[in-house]
Amino acid sequence: MTNDTICALATATGGAIGIVRVSGCLSLEVLGRIFRVSSRNTGNFCANRVYYGHIIDAEGGVVDEVLVSVFRAPHSYTGEDAVEISCHGSQYILHTVLSLLIQQGCRMANPGEFTQRAYLNGKMDLSQAEAVADLIASTNEATHRLAISQLRGNFSTELSRLREKLLKLTSLLELELDFSDHEDLEFADRTELLDLARKIDEHINRLAHSFHTGQAIKQGVPVAIVGKTNVGKSTLLNRLLRDERAIVSDVHGTTRDTIEDIMDLHGVSFRFIDTAGIRQTVDEVEQIGISRTFAAIDRARIILWLIDAEPTAAECMEMQERAVGKSLIIIQNKIDTDIAKKVNIPLSVSHVPFLQISAKNGINIINLEEEIYQAANIPLLKNSDIIVTNARHYEALVNAHESLLRVINALSQQLSGDLVAEDLRLALSQLADITGGQITTNEVLENIFKTFCVGK
Amino acid sequence: MTNDTICALATATGGAIGIVRVSGCLSLEVLGRIFRVSSRNTGNFCANRVYYGHIIDAEGGVVDEVLVSVFRAPHSYTGEDAVEISCHGSQYILHTVLSLLIQQGCRMANPGEFTQRAYLNGKMDLSQAEAVADLIASTNEATHRLAISQLRGNFSTELSRLREKLLKLTSLLELELDFSDHEDLEFADRTELLDLARKIDEHINRLAHSFHTGQAIKQGVPVAIVGKTNVGKSTLLNRLLRDERAIVSDVHGTTRDTIEDIMDLHGVSFRFIDTAGIRQTVDEVEQIGISRTFAAIDRARIILWLIDAEPTAAECMEMQERAVGKSLIIIQNKIDTDIAKKVNIPLSVSHVPFLQISAKNGINIINLEEEIYQAANIPLLKNSDIIVTNARHYEALVNAHESLLRVINALSQQLSGDLVAEDLRLALSQLADITGGQITTNEVLENIFKTFCVGK
Repeated sequence: MTNDTICALATATGGAIGIVRVSGCLSLEVLGRIFRVSSRNTGNFCANRVYYGHIIDAEGGVVDEVLVSVFRAPHSYTGEDAVEISCHGSQYILHTVLSLLIQQGCRMANPGEFTQRAYLNGKMDLSQAEAVADLIASTNEATHRLAISQLRGNFSTELSRLREKLLKLTSLLELELDFSDHEDLEFADRTELLDLARKIDEHINRLAHSFHTGQAIKQGVPVAIVGKTNVGKSTLLNRLLRDERAIVSDVHGTTRDTIEDIMDLHGVSFRFIDTAGIRQTVDEVEQIGISRTFAAIDRARIILWLIDAEPTAAECMEMQERAVGKSLIIIQNKIDTDIAKKVNIPLSVSHVPFLQISAKNGINIINLEEEIYQAANIPLLKNSDIIVTNARHYEALVNAHESLLRVINALSQQLSGDLVAEDLRLALSQLADITGGQITTNEVLENIFKTFCVGK
Repeated sequence: MTNDTICALATATGGAIGIVRVSGCLSLEVLGRIFRVSSRNTGNFCANRVYYGHIIDAEGGVVDEVLVSVFRAPHSYTGEDAVEISCHGSQYILHTVLSLLIQQGCRMANPGEFTQRAYLNGKMDLSQAEAVADLIASTNEATHRLAISQLRGNFSTELSRLREKLLKLTSLLELELDFSDHEDLEFADRTELLDLARKIDEHINRLAHSFHTGQAIKQGVPVAIVGKTNVGKSTLLNRLLRDERAIVSDVHGTTRDTIEDIMDLHGVSFRFIDTAGIRQTVDEVEQIGISRTFAAIDRARIILWLIDAEPTAAECMEMQERAVGKSLIIIQNKIDTDIAKKVNIPLSVSHVPFLQISAKNGINIINLEEEIYQAANIPLLKNSDIIVTNARHYEALVNAHESLLRVINALSQQLSGDLVAEDLRLALSQLADITGGQITTNEVLENIFKTFCVGK
């Protein structure tokens, strides 16, 4: 299966440099046929060296002046012999180099196939391989931190600790089975087993729960700004995004058209959802806009309710109903204008955070940002924190949790040890699926790697 | 000026891998502060080696697992100590690595600054440096071939040959000046000098003239498809572009929205200009379309005149007038339909290439393509051919040509050798400007390198 040699473009097109990546047992042989080193070279490529020379086509014409990095198995990303060709970033050149490689017996790599090979060759486990895709996709400090932690094996270590505990439980259970004749021993063992099982389950449960934080970090926290028309929603959105956007474009020099409604706070992304103003109307078109607003509120995790005058008790009640399970922040805008009045927040919402700002003149915005961050309820992450960000991992953890619940139930009901052992084995295998320790089916692997970009 | 150490992103964002490039005397020192090598390392980075390790931020956190290639002066692209950091292609990571480098005393490179340093450090001359930008921008075989030939110094070699001949002419002239007392010697010398000057001028002129071919290759050859309405212009355009487009999208997997009217023939790009149908009309809007068509004809180098019936003598005369200085091809479309009649081409255009095709059913299209390629009059390029593609070079060659014309004129009119020598020096300096052999002003350098991408 991994006997063939694969190649792919590993960089986006359009830069000064483009990298063509090759991996497989033929890598160095193929390189020798299309690459002419400039210096006196014995023909043997040494590992971890960079060679300067020319890529030559079948007619002996120079395709490009390149730098080639040579890696030898198992000391490469994939664990195989591998080559990285650093070309001038012309599409024509990169395409020609890939064509030459294919003519010499390489084939185009599938998405994620380099990383898949790294996994199959034992260079990393499955959760680390998945972290590679997350790392490349990371756009801020929080997503980056979670991905790099997972890539470095912190999650894998945590899982192997859990597995050890489960194995200990299994062996204790077997001990119990061995001594099952001694009726007086059983009860004490069961208490110990039960205690251990509960602790393991608590641990698994904590990991599974971290998925909600992980999701918020990975997808960005959805925030809806709602309120009556002309209360200053767009001004507030622009105010919240403006500085962020300026910093971003200053640093990257890139356009951010597609994500211009995202703001990073303390390294976490907040996705702002546009909403139309809410007011009583008979206008059909406007009503569609308002029903969209209500849908936006449903998707949001945080609702910024912008007001410029005192809300009625009915409005407060309606908003509270819509905000069930979400974080609500009431914001009085335009406090530096003549129309600003003293606003008495009705008693029913007196526990809700209330801020007075001027979106137009930037008053109190920093406090508002802090309030938004607090409302997201994302723990300040330490490097050692393990946060689950992957739905596949979450599902496996939930399954393991359910298996353990059956274990706990069986243990407390004094059921036969054989039944308990069965569920324990299941929990062990469910955890092992995360890192791919057990045999993982091709279908699962394909599903995981198809979301990768080609060249990784 | 080049005492500072520069850094830049050398790849486009969005790929699996992103490369950060560093060049300058501090490169290795800075690397030592932000990079932790995984293997036991003495702290000395060896030249032309690849190191695997981690980029570490100020708090000791891992930013990324990277591969770092180390180069030592003068054996690097820039001729300075240099480092290439191969990161995971996340914008956040690449931005963080650049920030760390800047914190450690590097500064962001200007567009083309790496290549500019390569030029200033004598790694390449100015025409080679300019070829780097052309190479990166090359999109087909012809543009690629010209750029790589220029990068490899073929144009520079040609220019240095020319300079040698000019120097020979200069020394002969000085010889003449030394012997100017001997009146009987003068005449013989002048004939030899004149002969040599004419040969050099012919050579310079040939190079200057190649700019038209160079431009056609670099910009693409403009082609207008004209004809009455409903004659099948769009069908022909689609037919000419279709296969090409399919191949392109098959190979690159990229959208080509912006250049969808470009077709490559034998590695040369042909740019098709959309035109409205020509007919007698009083409709004002339609007349605007028709006047645009005439403007398109003016810009075109090749005109495909599509007809489905015999053109009148008047039409032929009008078309010939418009096609002065261009290549005209007359094409009878729809030859496989019932309406196809035998078309007698009027005598006045009987010398014009005439083809019968069916755009709809693809009849005779290959012959048409060959005819279009021939009409462009682009010589089949050999690797050794020198074609001028750069307007700056063209201007210098034209200037040198004019200086030489004055030399020739002065020589034939038996003017004083001092005046001739002055124009000879001028021609020499004009040629030297191309490769930057003389002192090139900062302004000229800035102009050249500002069109580069950052990171090159």
